[in-house]
Amino acid sequence: MTRIAMLGSGFIGRFYAESIQGQRSRDKIVSIYSRREESAKKFAQDYNCEHWTTSMEASIAHPGVDIVCIALPNNLHEAAVMLCCKYKKAVITTKPLGRNATEAKRMLEAVEAAGIFNGYLEDLVYTPKFLKAYESVKNGALGRILWAKSRETHPGPHSDWFWDIEQAGGGCILDLGCHCVEIARSFIGKDIKPVEVMCWADTQVKPIDAEDHAIGLVKYENGAIGQFEVSWTFRGGLDLRDEVMGTEGTIWTNTFLRTGLEMFTTGKGADYVAEKAESNTGWLFPVGDELNELGYNHMFADMFNAMEKGLAPQETFYDGYVVNAILDAAYRSAKTRLWEPVQLDIWRGKTGISKDSHLTAYDEDHWLVKEEMTHYGARKLILKHKQTGKISERVQDK
Amino acid sequence: MTRIAMLGSGFIGRFYAESIQGQRSRDKIVSIYSRREESAKKFAQDYNCEHWTTSMEASIAHPGVDIVCIALPNNLHEAAVMLCCKYKKAVITTKPLGRNATEAKRMLEAVEAAGIFNGYLEDLVYTPKFLKAYESVKNGALGRILWAKSRETHPGPHSDWFWDIEQAGGGCILDLGCHCVEIARSFIGKDIKPVEVMCWADTQVKPIDAEDHAIGLVKYENGAIGQFEVSWTFRGGLDLRDEVMGTEGTIWTNTFLRTGLEMFTTGKGADYVAEKAESNTGWLFPVGDELNELGYNHMFADMFNAMEKGLAPQETFYDGYVVNAILDAAYRSAKTRLWEPVQLDIWRGKTGISKDSHLTAYDEDHWLVKEEMTHYGARKLILKHKQTGKISERVQDK
Amino acid sequence: MTRIAMLGSGFIGRFYAESIQGQRSRDKIVSIYSRREESAKKFAQDYNCEHWTTSMEASIAHPGVDIVCIALPNNLHEAAVMLCCKYKKAVITTKPLGRNATEAKRMLEAVEAAGIFNGYLEDLVYTPKFLKAYESVKNGALGRILWAKSRETHPGPHSDWFWDIEQAGGGCILDLGCHCVEIARSFIGKDIKPVEVMCWADTQVKPIDAEDHAIGLVKYENGAIGQFEVSWTFRGGLDLRDEVMGTEGTIWTNTFLRTGLEMFTTGKGADYVAEKAESNTGWLFPVGDELNELGYNHMFADMFNAMEKGLAPQETFYDGYVVNAILDAAYRSAKTRLWEPVQLDIWRGKTGISKDSHLTAYDEDHWLVKEEMTHYGARKLILKHKQTGKISERVQDK
Amino acid sequence: MTRIAMLGSGFIGRFYAESIQGQRSRDKIVSIYSRREESAKKFAQDYNCEHWTTSMEASIAHPGVDIVCIALPNNLHEAAVMLCCKYKKAVITTKPLGRNATEAKRMLEAVEAAGIFNGYLEDLVYTPKFLKAYESVKNGALGRILWAKSRETHPGPHSDWFWDIEQAGGGCILDLGCHCVEIARSFIGKDIKPVEVMCWADTQVKPIDAEDHAIGLVKYENGAIGQFEVSWTFRGGLDLRDEVMGTEGTIWTNTFLRTGLEMFTTGKGADYVAEKAESNTGWLFPVGDELNELGYNHMFADMFNAMEKGLAPQETFYDGYVVNAILDAAYRSAKTRLWEPVQLDIWRGKTGISKDSHLTAYDEDHWLVKEEMTHYGARKLILKHKQTGKISERVQDK
Repeated sequence: MTRIAMLGSGFIGRFYAESIQGQRSRDKIVSIYSRREESAKKFAQDYNCEHWTTSMEASIAHPGVDIVCIALPNNLHEAAVMLCCKYKKAVITTKPLGRNATEAKRMLEAVEAAGIFNGYLEDLVYTPKFLKAYESVKNGALGRILWAKSRETHPGPHSDWFWDIEQAGGGCILDLGCHCVEIARSFIGKDIKPVEVMCWADTQVKPIDAEDHAIGLVKYENGAIGQFEVSWTFRGGLDLRDEVMGTEGTIWTNTFLRTGLEMFTTGKGADYVAEKAESNTGWLFPVGDELNELGYNHMFADMFNAMEKGLAPQETFYDGYVVNAILDAAYRSAKTRLWEPVQLDIWRGKTGISKDSHLTAYDEDHWLVKEEMTHYGARKLILKHKQTGKISERVQDK
Repeated sequence: MTRIAMLGSGFIGRFYAESIQGQRSRDKIVSIYSRREESAKKFAQDYNCEHWTTSMEASIAHPGVDIVCIALPNNLHEAAVMLCCKYKKAVITTKPLGRNATEAKRMLEAVEAAGIFNGYLEDLVYTPKFLKAYESVKNGALGRILWAKSRETHPGPHSDWFWDIEQAGGGCILDLGCHCVEIARSFIGKDIKPVEVMCWADTQVKPIDAEDHAIGLVKYENGAIGQFEVSWTFRGGLDLRDEVMGTEGTIWTNTFLRTGLEMFTTGKGADYVAEKAESNTGWLFPVGDELNELGYNHMFADMFNAMEKGLAPQETFYDGYVVNAILDAAYRSAKTRLWEPVQLDIWRGKTGISKDSHLTAYDEDHWLVKEEMTHYGARKLILKHKQTGKISERVQDK
Repeated sequence: MTRIAMLGSGFIGRFYAESIQGQRSRDKIVSIYSRREESAKKFAQDYNCEHWTTSMEASIAHPGVDIVCIALPNNLHEAAVMLCCKYKKAVITTKPLGRNATEAKRMLEAVEAAGIFNGYLEDLVYTPKFLKAYESVKNGALGRILWAKSRETHPGPHSDWFWDIEQAGGGCILDLGCHCVEIARSFIGKDIKPVEVMCWADTQVKPIDAEDHAIGLVKYENGAIGQFEVSWTFRGGLDLRDEVMGTEGTIWTNTFLRTGLEMFTTGKGADYVAEKAESNTGWLFPVGDELNELGYNHMFADMFNAMEKGLAPQETFYDGYVVNAILDAAYRSAKTRLWEPVQLDIWRGKTGISKDSHLTAYDEDHWLVKEEMTHYGARKLILKHKQTGKISERVQDK
Repeated sequence: MTRIAMLGSGFIGRFYAESIQGQRSRDKIVSIYSRREESAKKFAQDYNCEHWTTSMEASIAHPGVDIVCIALPNNLHEAAVMLCCKYKKAVITTKPLGRNATEAKRMLEAVEAAGIFNGYLEDLVYTPKFLKAYESVKNGALGRILWAKSRETHPGPHSDWFWDIEQAGGGCILDLGCHCVEIARSFIGKDIKPVEVMCWADTQVKPIDAEDHAIGLVKYENGAIGQFEVSWTFRGGLDLRDEVMGTEGTIWTNTFLRTGLEMFTTGKGADYVAEKAESNTGWLFPVGDELNELGYNHMFADMFNAMEKGLAPQETFYDGYVVNAILDAAYRSAKTRLWEPVQLDIWRGKTGISKDSHLTAYDEDHWLVKEEMTHYGARKLILKHKQTGKISERVQDK
């Protein structure tokens, strides 16, 4: 049994609580901190917490607490982490780790100096689909990974603080891009160094200071490309899709809007309350089990299992720091309009990786460009001469 | 914490164990019974069970056991249930409950006489998609339910005993139809009486005595129709789909073969072992989290939560009995080629329900047949005169 | 160039005209007959026809006409066909051929006696998807066909006469089942005799005399099963799907509601007129090119090409007659609740076909039940002893 | 009737011929030119052409020819166009128009000086799905267009000349990007000026001098963003998908790999010849009617109808020139790693368009950031103060 202090009683805090205390879990939220007394009480009541408080420090310091789960606005992560260090409490933090890599680095160095367990709550690399896809990629089913794209777009976040650049630290790049960047980085290899970023960002629709739409490319040292597409202006629900291209295969995942459950309703049925504001009649595509599909269950299991075994979880503050560093480069690129280097003062992966060779020899004199079966069943080869570079075609009968 | 005795260490027993002891569960399998010592030992080791035995009774009687989970071939369910009654142990049984309604009725009467907790492990009415769809149906999003179809087909079961009609009690009707029948019955209403069944069944491909393909219609007292399509001869994987039609809406679920994860692989990647024999290259459609998608997690949570609270779970032996009675009628119908009545000595739902009226009045003289918007934006009505029965058309400009 | 007389200026007549004179067609509708002068004139103007009339005979007899296309309510087909025979004009008729097999047989015998070209406009066996699927089936990609299901459901037809059982001859079985029956029959083999039908039908929603929902099974002489699912009560659009199971493969087609074009709209865009009354906001699934997707283009090409070459088209009055005979059996079955024989006075296919053997020998003593790859990479065989019938399992290491 | 000279008898020439002379077409290829006599003869025989030749000029000059269709490698377009100008023959050219904008501009100026009909054969803005989607966009169903992405990737072209940078003029950017750029440009508005391009390109897999994978962003004067994703290294077939985001809606199209026809085959069926080398067993996703789905039918209909009516077709050499100018900027950007301006000496659309305002006033003092329905049915507003910029939240009960 793990005893948790939850910091924050908002949308994400409640989502976490549903997962942590769901089904037959042996884990328990023992303390809840919220800035507002009313919210803290309500949460304590709903999730049966023995302790509630409006003092963050009181919650962290509470003797019954094994681990602190930070579910606060981005600008409050650092202060909370520092308190965890002070009280030597294990800590897990919602995404993004910091508002930027400077904050993230301070948090990383602090938890490591304090020697406390630290986990980065990047749920979207814990979704069942990601985990299955990732396993296939690791097994070599896709060959060498060339490109990994992750897309998260929706009509904008629920809580007000996301829309305030001071509290949030940015717009959809920080809010959604942190997911996408870690997904692509995982497929490409977390030990491969991200080297530079090109990003377009704009505020196309919303009356806000931050960006509401952005697209970025992240170049890795081995020549692979990560791509993120993020927006708060998408219409139609929550679009959450990944694509991976490898030399031997392809993966497409759709985690939310097309998962095999389709419903049409005229809306005339009495008492039917729609779960999304975008549409409550016509064709709807609800997700069966949101907590599981979004990765929360597998994420908390990994966190608490790792803590019990004295191991590092799949995602640590170090990963959160790398993600922040990549997003910082994206923000710089959106302004300078240049490919911006990823500044990684701390890098624990490989270095000096060069691009893999991509040449397949056909015979002594030729590289193989392509081999295909024609409509009439013959084998067709396209070859390139190694010396002259001349392209030629050969057709072999069956 | 619930302490379980698992009877059976085969494919399904292991699946159950993965779910029961998965992630952060507080439940524990304390005893494992298998006919073969080697299997019992192996299971005990894999799932860290303190007690293993080749005596079914020893496992059930084991003092540390709160509840017995029967994961045995169909012909062994009854004996196991009777032993649970003897030792007053709570019991949950894999599907189908009996090989027929006679067996099922004896088991139902025995557990009720013994006053023990009983649950029917019909996982497919616990899948996240089913639960979400079911909630919408209960909320009225589909209006009155007219038809519910469930389809389960695949290339045949893994274990040998399924193919032996004596042990299994039947073919794909019993093995797969039990799922489909309970899904449709749930959508239509578990308090609505199933009255008669028409079923076609044949052995089209396999060298077996039982049927390998069947289609059945189940008529309910309120005029709604349940449909099952089951086969052990399907090629392409596990096809698990439901469809529901209501007066105000439609639901389609795809639980296994098209759930939003698509992978193409040439198969050249080293070390890649395919998880299904049907195909290991080309386009594959793996499921992210099989245990959750197939309903095991939600099913065991309901079972153990209900037991702890002293309540009945969503599915009890009574439901298993009703399903067996419907399947018995299907088997009779397949032989007699007639609509066969469902023989329910025990019926606890409504009776005497007549078909709902389906008439919508348009005005004093007319019933409304249809209202639609034409291509050019006008409103078109098709009406039927209440007295004369004459059909007429009215077009109203925007 | 083919010169056509179109009989009927309603919804289907206009659909046909769009196809016949579409794009770069060399064919021309030269005469239009409609009961109402206003409609005839309007059609003539819209499709640039040189001749319009309110006399059916005048249109058929018109000297410039090569072929007559009947797009009239079901009760008027026979009279129109007889006039074509009188004037020795080639004739093609919309589906169903007759209101029943008696009418259909008279029409078939009449056109054959008159020696005129005759085509049955069953568009759904001319859809691009059907044609491609059919080619694969013929090439053996699915092995022996075991089952072919076709489903057509929607919220009810546009024109008033469909709802009048006298004019229409029936409800959704006749209107939609004619498509489904011919699709399944084509996949199974048009030379295989349909022998008996079991059908459930009901009027669940609409205030009409005919059925608005039905499900039927058609047994073929070789043991294959055709299935139709038809309804005028479906909510969500036009659902048009086929499924085929063979010993070596599977086909699924979705011809209308999920074809790869998905649109979400809030409906706030000015001037947007929805094409379907079911829904004009939210997620919509329009078809790109309805005429082509529904088979009209390929159907008329086959008809006119066949006529020019002096050949029979893919679908003739004979096929229409067989379909009517199957549907007659379905109507009888819905009343008698029995499997009803298909009464075919005229049958030009094979007879005396027995069910194919389905036994695969594994070795001298055993039949092979199943072969599969286990999770751990071994080959597992399930066998049945030829003499004893005993089922056994063998696992072979890699 | 249109009488066509086809220049080129390869893969694309044959595809064009199937469409031009397909079904009930009144058009006719009267002359075929091929560099190789054997190919010209074979083509003439297959498509029943009265004239064949190995002299390009002879084919163009042939007196029976109304219009010349150029289906030659990219490096031969210009010479062919110049001959059409010389003989004042109407001309339509396969994509891309030129190998670069310099060539394209010379061709554009030449045909306009010669006063001849000119069409640009960009089939993918003529696909049924594109046309339907485009109509919705024009009708305002998506509101203001923010972003339009087009993706075309496959395992590489069939013919050898594509792989030779001298003949082709480039790699997948030129070959596939020309489609994607025109699709996005059409959705955003062909009168909106493309201003700059950022492009990443690499040769990741193939032993060639040109790029085999590229991603580009095209910024338009009104702030909208076009995106292309192109590759010759994709595994799994031909991936052809578009996505459009507008302020009021979303469009997703899948033109080839997921169109509603799904087939599984073990491959054991005799005589089955697969149509694609990527895979001929397992799950396959054939397209029903390739010619129609890829836009050829609608494209040629538009071309010949426009010519007959003396109008410009939807796509002219001018469009081809704009596309080449955008692609030139993409190639420059891939080298300089900068956003490169699109150099358009000739521009016939709007100029000086500024970014649309995106502010929605909620009341005198506030902009509306977001409105949504909460889980518990209340209306929640997120507002921004016009003066202070402060973000606030308001919840209104039902």
